Amino acid sequence: MRPVHESMMRRRVEQARVGRLATITSAGDPHIVPVCFAVDVDRIVTAVDDKPKTTTALRRLDNVRAHGRASLLVDFWSEDWTALWWIRVDGSARVLDDGADLDAAIGTLERKYRDQYGIHPPKGPAILIHAERWRGWSAGS
Amino acid sequence: MRPVHESMMRRRVEQARVGRLATITSAGDPHIVPVCFAVDVDRIVTAVDDKPKTTTALRRLDNVRAHGRASLLVDFWSEDWTALWWIRVDGSARVLDDGADLDAAIGTLERKYRDQYGIHPPKGPAILIHAERWRGWSAGS
Repeated sequence: MRPVHESMMRRRVEQARVGRLATITSAGDPHIVPVCFAVDVDRIVTAVDDKPKTTTALRRLDNVRAHGRASLLVDFWSEDWTALWWIRVDGSARVLDDGADLDAAIGTLERKYRDQYGIHPPKGPAILIHAERWRGWSAGS
Repeated sequence: MRPVHESMMRRRVEQARVGRLATITSAGDPHIVPVCFAVDVDRIVTAVDDKPKTTTALRRLDNVRAHGRASLLVDFWSEDWTALWWIRVDGSARVLDDGADLDAAIGTLERKYRDQYGIHPPKGPAILIHAERWRGWSAGS
């Protein structure tokens, strides 16, 4: 196993189509959901796809409002464990409820997910993560 | 979107080959790693694959020791978003450092991952999650 260089970490995270987002609930417990996301240097955005009033969507927004930290994981799974790798981005997070920041976030997501968000743009809110630390691991080369 | 019945959630989690584990660091921040795991009713086990002294492996063990809660996610990704689903299991967690519980956990993992752990069994420690809540979401039917 070996660490992964930052340029490769950034490329892999930018290209990934799905990630998993960990936050902390207001009760202090870990919480995790799969997310679509887009990267602009050290800004990572993900939007609520569902109707905003569903419990599922509200939970991750409540979490970020209560505890403004997030951890995003991108990884590769294979039955060949010499091919495994993962990259984790830790940072501060906040909810974008409206305004220019939300519009920009949704625009970034529409461009990345043309066949999905490009046709049915998410309304938001969105979560903006300011990446502070990129960590990567690779089983092989 | 609709919720997923518990029997289907359990089957999907049992059959999944990879999950993502969220814990909380001693500093109170979210932490997330991909994990191999095995399920025995409401007991979910995952082992440290790397050398126990690596920072990466130690972190998740330290987290569970500091804050005995964990959240495990199993999900399905597709560019066809009507096919998406995820299942999340929340529960208490503890580290199995040695003894019969660790041996049982490793045995369960060896049987599930025959081509990997069956050949190179993990030494541990392992993490045991007592599942308290199963939540599922599916975009389609």
